[in-house]
Amino acid sequence: MVAAKTGNGEAHSSEAFTRLYSPRKIDGSFTGKHIVTVEQFSYLDLQDLFQLALSLRERVRQGDRSLIEIGAGKVMATLFYEASTRTDMSFQAAMHRLGGAVVSTSGGVQFSSVYKGENLADTLRAVGCYADVIVLRHPDVGSSYEAAYYLDKLHTRLDRHPVIVSGGDGIGEHPTQALLDLFTITDYKNGIDNLTVTMVGDLRNGRTVHSLSKLIAQYEAKNVTFCFVSPDILQMPAYIQDFLVQRGYQVHQTSELDEVLATSDVIYWTRVQEERFANPADYEAIRDHFVMTPEVLSRAKSDAILMHPLPRKHEMGTQSDHDVLDEDPRAVYFGQMENGMFVRMALLAKVLGLAGA
Amino acid sequence: MVAAKTGNGEAHSSEAFTRLYSPRKIDGSFTGKHIVTVEQFSYLDLQDLFQLALSLRERVRQGDRSLIEIGAGKVMATLFYEASTRTDMSFQAAMHRLGGAVVSTSGGVQFSSVYKGENLADTLRAVGCYADVIVLRHPDVGSSYEAAYYLDKLHTRLDRHPVIVSGGDGIGEHPTQALLDLFTITDYKNGIDNLTVTMVGDLRNGRTVHSLSKLIAQYEAKNVTFCFVSPDILQMPAYIQDFLVQRGYQVHQTSELDEVLATSDVIYWTRVQEERFANPADYEAIRDHFVMTPEVLSRAKSDAILMHPLPRKHEMGTQSDHDVLDEDPRAVYFGQMENGMFVRMALLAKVLGLAGA
Amino acid sequence: MVAAKTGNGEAHSSEAFTRLYSPRKIDGSFTGKHIVTVEQFSYLDLQDLFQLALSLRERVRQGDRSLIEIGAGKVMATLFYEASTRTDMSFQAAMHRLGGAVVSTSGGVQFSSVYKGENLADTLRAVGCYADVIVLRHPDVGSSYEAAYYLDKLHTRLDRHPVIVSGGDGIGEHPTQALLDLFTITDYKNGIDNLTVTMVGDLRNGRTVHSLSKLIAQYEAKNVTFCFVSPDILQMPAYIQDFLVQRGYQVHQTSELDEVLATSDVIYWTRVQEERFANPADYEAIRDHFVMTPEVLSRAKSDAILMHPLPRKHEMGTQSDHDVLDEDPRAVYFGQMENGMFVRMALLAKVLGLAGA
Repeated sequence: MVAAKTGNGEAHSSEAFTRLYSPRKIDGSFTGKHIVTVEQFSYLDLQDLFQLALSLRERVRQGDRSLIEIGAGKVMATLFYEASTRTDMSFQAAMHRLGGAVVSTSGGVQFSSVYKGENLADTLRAVGCYADVIVLRHPDVGSSYEAAYYLDKLHTRLDRHPVIVSGGDGIGEHPTQALLDLFTITDYKNGIDNLTVTMVGDLRNGRTVHSLSKLIAQYEAKNVTFCFVSPDILQMPAYIQDFLVQRGYQVHQTSELDEVLATSDVIYWTRVQEERFANPADYEAIRDHFVMTPEVLSRAKSDAILMHPLPRKHEMGTQSDHDVLDEDPRAVYFGQMENGMFVRMALLAKVLGLAGA
Repeated sequence: MVAAKTGNGEAHSSEAFTRLYSPRKIDGSFTGKHIVTVEQFSYLDLQDLFQLALSLRERVRQGDRSLIEIGAGKVMATLFYEASTRTDMSFQAAMHRLGGAVVSTSGGVQFSSVYKGENLADTLRAVGCYADVIVLRHPDVGSSYEAAYYLDKLHTRLDRHPVIVSGGDGIGEHPTQALLDLFTITDYKNGIDNLTVTMVGDLRNGRTVHSLSKLIAQYEAKNVTFCFVSPDILQMPAYIQDFLVQRGYQVHQTSELDEVLATSDVIYWTRVQEERFANPADYEAIRDHFVMTPEVLSRAKSDAILMHPLPRKHEMGTQSDHDVLDEDPRAVYFGQMENGMFVRMALLAKVLGLAGA
Repeated sequence: MVAAKTGNGEAHSSEAFTRLYSPRKIDGSFTGKHIVTVEQFSYLDLQDLFQLALSLRERVRQGDRSLIEIGAGKVMATLFYEASTRTDMSFQAAMHRLGGAVVSTSGGVQFSSVYKGENLADTLRAVGCYADVIVLRHPDVGSSYEAAYYLDKLHTRLDRHPVIVSGGDGIGEHPTQALLDLFTITDYKNGIDNLTVTMVGDLRNGRTVHSLSKLIAQYEAKNVTFCFVSPDILQMPAYIQDFLVQRGYQVHQTSELDEVLATSDVIYWTRVQEERFANPADYEAIRDHFVMTPEVLSRAKSDAILMHPLPRKHEMGTQSDHDVLDEDPRAVYFGQMENGMFVRMALLAKVLGLAGA
């Protein structure tokens, strides 16, 4: 095991652990594996996971009470160093719907010993002494890698092997968001082959769209066309575009939604934040091109789906715009959100190696 | 469905939803109905609910472990936009005693995406994607109506129908407090007919006493006399007094407790807050008339009951006064508090349509 | 029952309740007893508790799902007035692993009615109306005594008898920490007779080392030698040293670790805080003598154990030092931490009188 040392005895940054720690591929077996990146999943792994998510969703809808036998006796801890209502609550609900228990710091992490100066490595191992699976949300890139690294070290000392599931690490990755996004596409469009997938907004900084793009490729989707619509300074990074092209996908990059709106099957909407622009005038110049409204949606295909990771602000217009959009059958973001719970149920059941799921 | 729009596309205030949304009467069936106001309950509904609360209380006291099969597999979310230890914890304990699970935002709502600017309608629907019942506490009047309105909209899109139970909305309503208060009266006094019910304190702003007054009338209590004791500027609103008179009840209004103390069967004590008085001298002039002490209680009927919604401050004197009052058999506020859990158990079981309760 | 009054009607300080309230000895029966001090436990009680902790640990490790039948239907409340990730989460996990439920104030106590001015006595009884066992963490000495006192008063009014388990009260006591510490010594060293137990750091203010010292004596350990290593101004209080000497133990006091390091079987490390020193130069002069590093540990016996209550800071050197120490078989602080959960499971099962444990 490579020790995480630096010359002066100071801790590595979390980011350094993306190099020190190599997450294990799922490769047909989820049990006991930390989930830190979408790169761990192959087509078959995803099929396997989505199959289970569908089955669990059906059982929840039918009120199948035997579900709670699946995770009975297991303990999940949530460790959220920043707020995320959706990720937090959907993981909690997922664990509970499997019959498992959830522990968290009363009052949130900000009211805990972390704020008395304990580092992530130690807090993580404390929680690892009590829980079977830990959901970590942390603002630093690489924090979930660091968590996995130190939990493996703990395993060498104690007769227990808790797993970490990333709930998002800063501008790094948010793997379960990508999983639920891909699941939602396959769910509403009966697969993903031959679709035109359009992503709109801040594609440079949006980890959501980065991870989803990669995951679609790993899902071995056939004949998908990617359309990336963003302000010029917020384009999808070249390394992701190159990756997709190398995998044989068509990639269109533009700042004009209308170039691709009418032919898009999937419209994945995200926010453009004013603070990304050094000059406010530059933001004002493009702002209105990145607002989804009922009028914009009216020009999309009748069987397109409109996705959004939520929460949403002005990028979906006013509250009145929301109210109209929300009634449109193409707006699937609530179903997308609910799918998050089912995908997380499936993932928890699999990494914990639970029978009966 | 009436859309919640205004001309300029801005969101309605929560308060507007008290007009846009009409809560369904219980009318013999609780299942799937949002609970936002005491006006939903008829005499028979209340009888039904209180019967169940009594039965559940008995089973809890006997340590009946089959209770936890009632709500097994169900998920309640708490969404508290302001603090309320009693309401929060008693709902949590109620759900757990039925065997259900509870999710909440780690660190409270103030540490969540709400504080990144998401509106109630969206947060509510996020939680509605994960939970079967949501307990909402919010400082804005009408917020529970707004919640019900948007959850019904969510229902039209997803195959799920979570219900909201109000945990209090500002100076508006706090229906479960009124339910537990009425239950407590019937519990300790074997019914409510022919009683003199005296409410003391700030009756103008106290939602607790407003709701309880209305609920007593809806319970079709016979021959109840209401005594409202308050400073002149904090009297019970005329519309509630009129409502009671129209229902045939005797109503006495006074600022002198001694006029009614010796004949009261139920003494419901609440706080008078200094900040309600523009002139501090006005407050000082009446302050001592609205402090319950052992000496005051000694002048009450021997079988009267003293209630208080708690928490209490100086309106029950010093800590020494508390210690003496708490030993008095007439002081039933701890029993009242405990009853809150049993009434909430009954209500949760009923709105979730749980068998075995 | 002695009433807790003062002449002017003001509340007693929490500290006064250490005189007003006498905790009941366990004396062979834990059921229904508040746990506020290590002084409640005899040798046989400790044997009994540790036996159960061992058995529960074995069952958790084997994945025995019948564990969750032990506490099914029981409700634990956590009431933390200050942060303590380890104590909080390990109690939560302990209760869940027994199948019980946990309630807490959403957003922590600081976001609750406590901060609207409610006193501990009232908050405690509110929670006591809902829960079967309450874990209280509070910065004031005597707060757990006060809690026990008022819960007993509540018991005289309601048909319920919740118990309090102290999770630490300021610089007073932290009984479950002492229990898990003693359990860990007996666990790793197969008993405690004939050992040399060395405690290092701020022994004047460290409740952990005070309680552990007393508990070792109550455990009737034979032929234990206590070595107390501290800066001169932070020595173990005389009353504890006297107590140990009277019980027939050898006690060595020194400011030089090297006098005792090579003969110590148990090394219990704690932090020396700069703020204890009026003169920063005094702190600087001794600082480096109270830092555990791999180099220091290399001079300890090969079968010694290094314990620490955690969290740790500079008293275990740099992150690199941590990484090396953590790999040393003598460093047992992670096992110590995990044992905390098993000891708390045993204690909860016993005070709740649960069958099947």
